[in-house]
Amino acid sequence: MGDEEVTALVILAEGAEEMETVISVDVMRRGGIKVTLAGLAGTDPVKCSRDVVICPDTSLDDARKHGPYDVVVLPGGLGGAKNLAASPKVKEVLQEQEGKGSLVAAVCAGPTALVSHGIGKGKTVTSHPSVQKVMEEAGHPYTEARVSRDGHIITSRGPGTCFEFALQIVETLRGKEVADKLVSPMLVKL
Amino acid sequence: MGDEEVTALVILAEGAEEMETVISVDVMRRGGIKVTLAGLAGTDPVKCSRDVVICPDTSLDDARKHGPYDVVVLPGGLGGAKNLAASPKVKEVLQEQEGKGSLVAAVCAGPTALVSHGIGKGKTVTSHPSVQKVMEEAGHPYTEARVSRDGHIITSRGPGTCFEFALQIVETLRGKEVADKLVSPMLVKL
Ligand SMILES: [Cu+]
Repeated sequence: MGDEEVTALVILAEGAEEMETVISVDVMRRGGIKVTLAGLAGTDPVKCSRDVVICPDTSLDDARKHGPYDVVVLPGGLGGAKNLAASPKVKEVLQEQEGKGSLVAAVCAGPTALVSHGIGKGKTVTSHPSVQKVMEEAGHPYTEARVSRDGHIITSRGPGTCFEFALQIVETLRGKEVADKLVSPMLVKL
Repeated sequence: MGDEEVTALVILAEGAEEMETVISVDVMRRGGIKVTLAGLAGTDPVKCSRDVVICPDTSLDDARKHGPYDVVVLPGGLGGAKNLAASPKVKEVLQEQEGKGSLVAAVCAGPTALVSHGIGKGKTVTSHPSVQKVMEEAGHPYTEARVSRDGHIITSRGPGTCFEFALQIVETLRGKEVADKLVSPMLVKL
């Protein structure tokens, strides 16, 4: 991997799981990825699943003008994932991303938005155990691995797997050496 | 443990580690603790160590009027911990807390604020490895355990130990059964 700028778009919807959102953003930034945390509904502060309120960097509308991104990341949280799944804008972003063959990453309930938008069809995935059935009924081979990568689709299971999830994104976009160097300063147990 | 309301005060300073802040708040809320995330400098949004911006629930000044709290939590992040260590208000809050024999919990660089404010003297602690020397030079017996509890002082090491840190707080205040039930839905690997 070279030193060209690597970029990520994390879409923040009302009801997102705040740990999944913040761990993804923070670890990718530690890994030298330029991350844009974009509010699905605009630039207003977003109330997450356990009432933590996060200010997006910008709106999704604005962030789209500054693309493309090397990865689009969908955090989980049941409410957040429902909002992502229901959004025509998210559908467009994901279809563009898949059309370029670029990386899409989703965690916890986030992978259900892939199903709603018809992204990553037939790819092996994982997800939060509570939505495993949704993924399987959509025809995805399912793995209980803590993180799964199948081609351009990275999926993971919940807040407790988010370090591995974000490290897999860093490894894919910036290389294993960069990812490995992040583990010990964060005291992550793999 | 009974069903009386259990409360936590998390102090959010500019430069706090956002993962440590959000994991602590979220996991304690999942554990049924009523958490107040209080801005050290007021109610304005707080820029964290990796540029995630979090809106506190209220200011520390206001939160103090609604105490006492069963635990006061200090997240890390080098910048955040320096701000906590330099604040006379934090000193007062921690001295009141210790005066009542109530729980104080600090993670990563957060334990250095205990040293600055003379809290938990002589207690066994852990911390981020980068500030181990600060803790030892202040006379604390040091452990490399991922979480340490010695009496009313709970300490931990970094973002990657924060699930264990928050679960230890839940276990101490609400019981082991409540804490244990949180592990599997979050997919935490212990
Ligand atoms: Cu979730």
